[in-house]
Amino acid sequence: MPGTVEDSSVEIAIVGGGIIGLALAAGLIKHDVKVKVYEQAKSFREIGAGMAFTSNAIQCMNLMNPDIVSALRSGGSVPTSFDSNDPNDYLRWMDGHNKRRKDDPSYQKMLGKLSAGYKGFEGTRRDQFLEALVKIIPEEIVELRKRLDDIEETGPDGRLRLNFTDGTSAQADAVIGCDGIKSRVRELIFGEDNPISHSHYTHKVAYRALVPMEKAIEALGEYKARNQHTHFGPNAHIIHYPVASQTMINVAVFISDPGEWPDDMVTVVPGLRKDLEDTFADWHPCLNALIQHFPEKIEKWAVFDMWDYPAPYYNKGNICLAGDAAHASSPHHGAGACCGIEDALCLCTLMCQVNDTLRGNKSAATEKNAALCAAFEVFDLMRRTRSQWLVNSSRRACDLYQQPEWGDETKWTKAETCFEELQDRSYKIWRFDYNGMIKRTVEEYEKRIPKTKN
Amino acid sequence: MPGTVEDSSVEIAIVGGGIIGLALAAGLIKHDVKVKVYEQAKSFREIGAGMAFTSNAIQCMNLMNPDIVSALRSGGSVPTSFDSNDPNDYLRWMDGHNKRRKDDPSYQKMLGKLSAGYKGFEGTRRDQFLEALVKIIPEEIVELRKRLDDIEETGPDGRLRLNFTDGTSAQADAVIGCDGIKSRVRELIFGEDNPISHSHYTHKVAYRALVPMEKAIEALGEYKARNQHTHFGPNAHIIHYPVASQTMINVAVFISDPGEWPDDMVTVVPGLRKDLEDTFADWHPCLNALIQHFPEKIEKWAVFDMWDYPAPYYNKGNICLAGDAAHASSPHHGAGACCGIEDALCLCTLMCQVNDTLRGNKSAATEKNAALCAAFEVFDLMRRTRSQWLVNSSRRACDLYQQPEWGDETKWTKAETCFEELQDRSYKIWRFDYNGMIKRTVEEYEKRIPKTKN
Repeated sequence: MPGTVEDSSVEIAIVGGGIIGLALAAGLIKHDVKVKVYEQAKSFREIGAGMAFTSNAIQCMNLMNPDIVSALRSGGSVPTSFDSNDPNDYLRWMDGHNKRRKDDPSYQKMLGKLSAGYKGFEGTRRDQFLEALVKIIPEEIVELRKRLDDIEETGPDGRLRLNFTDGTSAQADAVIGCDGIKSRVRELIFGEDNPISHSHYTHKVAYRALVPMEKAIEALGEYKARNQHTHFGPNAHIIHYPVASQTMINVAVFISDPGEWPDDMVTVVPGLRKDLEDTFADWHPCLNALIQHFPEKIEKWAVFDMWDYPAPYYNKGNICLAGDAAHASSPHHGAGACCGIEDALCLCTLMCQVNDTLRGNKSAATEKNAALCAAFEVFDLMRRTRSQWLVNSSRRACDLYQQPEWGDETKWTKAETCFEELQDRSYKIWRFDYNGMIKRTVEEYEKRIPKTKN
Repeated sequence: MPGTVEDSSVEIAIVGGGIIGLALAAGLIKHDVKVKVYEQAKSFREIGAGMAFTSNAIQCMNLMNPDIVSALRSGGSVPTSFDSNDPNDYLRWMDGHNKRRKDDPSYQKMLGKLSAGYKGFEGTRRDQFLEALVKIIPEEIVELRKRLDDIEETGPDGRLRLNFTDGTSAQADAVIGCDGIKSRVRELIFGEDNPISHSHYTHKVAYRALVPMEKAIEALGEYKARNQHTHFGPNAHIIHYPVASQTMINVAVFISDPGEWPDDMVTVVPGLRKDLEDTFADWHPCLNALIQHFPEKIEKWAVFDMWDYPAPYYNKGNICLAGDAAHASSPHHGAGACCGIEDALCLCTLMCQVNDTLRGNKSAATEKNAALCAAFEVFDLMRRTRSQWLVNSSRRACDLYQQPEWGDETKWTKAETCFEELQDRSYKIWRFDYNGMIKRTVEEYEKRIPKTKN
């Protein structure tokens, strides 16, 4: 029966069934918010890259829906550290280039070691986590093979129609774009020709490889192979950490490239191990040895982000952007997905607020729309500053990892003064005050939509 | 009588009678540490530039010796804000270049406003503060016209002889170099030909002027004239704040200069108002108007700091560096002197610890030397990271104030994403945990020189 309590609650459409879209859906379901997820792919199979979440981001997941944490752990946690004497996780920053002891080329200086605490990071394979997330979401919530073409208003009440490229459509009271770095929702908000609608080249290329543990130990030694390390040097850096229950290590190599990478060019092109051998020829011998275990032909990725043209707002009426769609970052803090999880927690909080507003009211549809628009306005207020800071900070961190000064003996002291800043930036990510965010989110929403007395 | 309790206490020589040297001397005197200050000038007359201390730095002064705070305030506090409705101090960041409203060239966007709290800053004239500091220090403590030439060990007990250029000398158990950016003590530690011994060009030039309040109000309007503001723009920025009981404003202009400035060239050269008029021709009209009140001929300063070649250590045996001698910074956080005051508090804490160690012991001179060397080692540990961070951060802040993006309408959003970082950096300076520093300083000292049971 129209006009009843049931009917007044909001219906949310999430565009994009990646980690953030599905985690948000799981959060909304847990809090009885009606939601549908539209994913363009025909299945959830994704590339099997590793990703790690901070304990802080896992707390955010837990607040949305503890099943998300179970899903994360169901694939088996992948520790980034493996030291029987020390249960904490660390970032370990190594001098990757220089030979500090001329008499001992095998010596490698540890430049810094930053504790993230017990279970400071929990790693997973992206595909495994996604698969587990799908399982905690009722089947009817997700529609696959739905590639968004356009969003239009259906009438004065603000209700939206999502038109898909297959000619079908769907309706919702609000749309949340979780459709990643190449977001269609972002294009629809800012226009296809607007540079804001596209990510841009960070002037870094990346190579990734998996190396069997015994080979890694041969090259790096047991301790380095079994624990996360980042090796700094002039205009490049290498990060590696154990995966697959310590049977392999995942190695990512990032190299500065002053050249351009056209926006319309594919971001993955064929590369050669030979190029890496040349780049790292005068680096520490353990890294030369490690590279020898890469395949001869290896893909080269151009790293893109939204640093050049950040979005001036994440909301437009009852449409908003979250996760990479809003603030695609380079991966140098390893925190892009954590930031998206913070977004999801904020949105989950807000959608509960909207339903609270509407519950018990025979609310007109326009009131619903006003509540949703206010909620997304608060989302923009709460999330844009921090998430755009992260995009900037990831760029800055990479600049510090890759200081040209690492290659100049007279500048080593100068280069090492970067660690206080790297520590501050890491702590800002790891120690996010999510309870404070939730509190202020509710306060800001109530400023805009005061509580009605039932 | 040698070997008594009295004789075992340390004698400290401070080289340099600037703000930090005298504040440290005042702190040591208050805690009954024997000290002498050697200043090369024939008097304490100094240039009358304004300087401000954070409430945090004033707390540090208070812990050393409340008379330092009285001295600061004796010249009359110079508020950087003047708003009868709001007792707090702020940093106010203005869009100095762009015309955000094409229909209204007088419009100037406030980009950010950061509260430093009630009495967040207290300003003073450098010469007035110095004069007041001299008054709280017994006359016999300070020797003028003593230009340090060399420091030598007098024997195996580590006692030092300071040789001055006038042929005289003095002895002390330890030397603390508070002799500023052109520190002789730093030269003696690292060698005259070492780049660490010298400051280097920051690629910014500065101009300073005092403008009468009524002229400032004419140009800027009442509110801006009476309160601290910084105007950002491409490759330059302007900061101004009221001085002399709101009868004048002090204006500092900083302009990027990609060129070089030889280390041996004087850092102050003649400049022209005309050059400023050209640089700021397309900036906001209020700034063009303000510059009209500068003198036609105006000195141009090259800004130098220790960013390029930071000191790898601040201590060498029983000699150490503090304040600008250790970490001369560009002035863009306005916090160089505050950081020196933190140094002084740390040293004051340590010298008390050393005397505690020696007190009641018929201590051999070598024990005294060991205690002093340990104390300076702890000083280096406690202070180097933060103070070198400040040098870097001041450079970084200036880069953000002067982003070329402020001059490009399509990049304004990007430029504005800097404020989260500027806020974090300001808070790190303003919210220094001095109690934590004192606690850890004592702990680290006691690790090296365990407490003896009397």
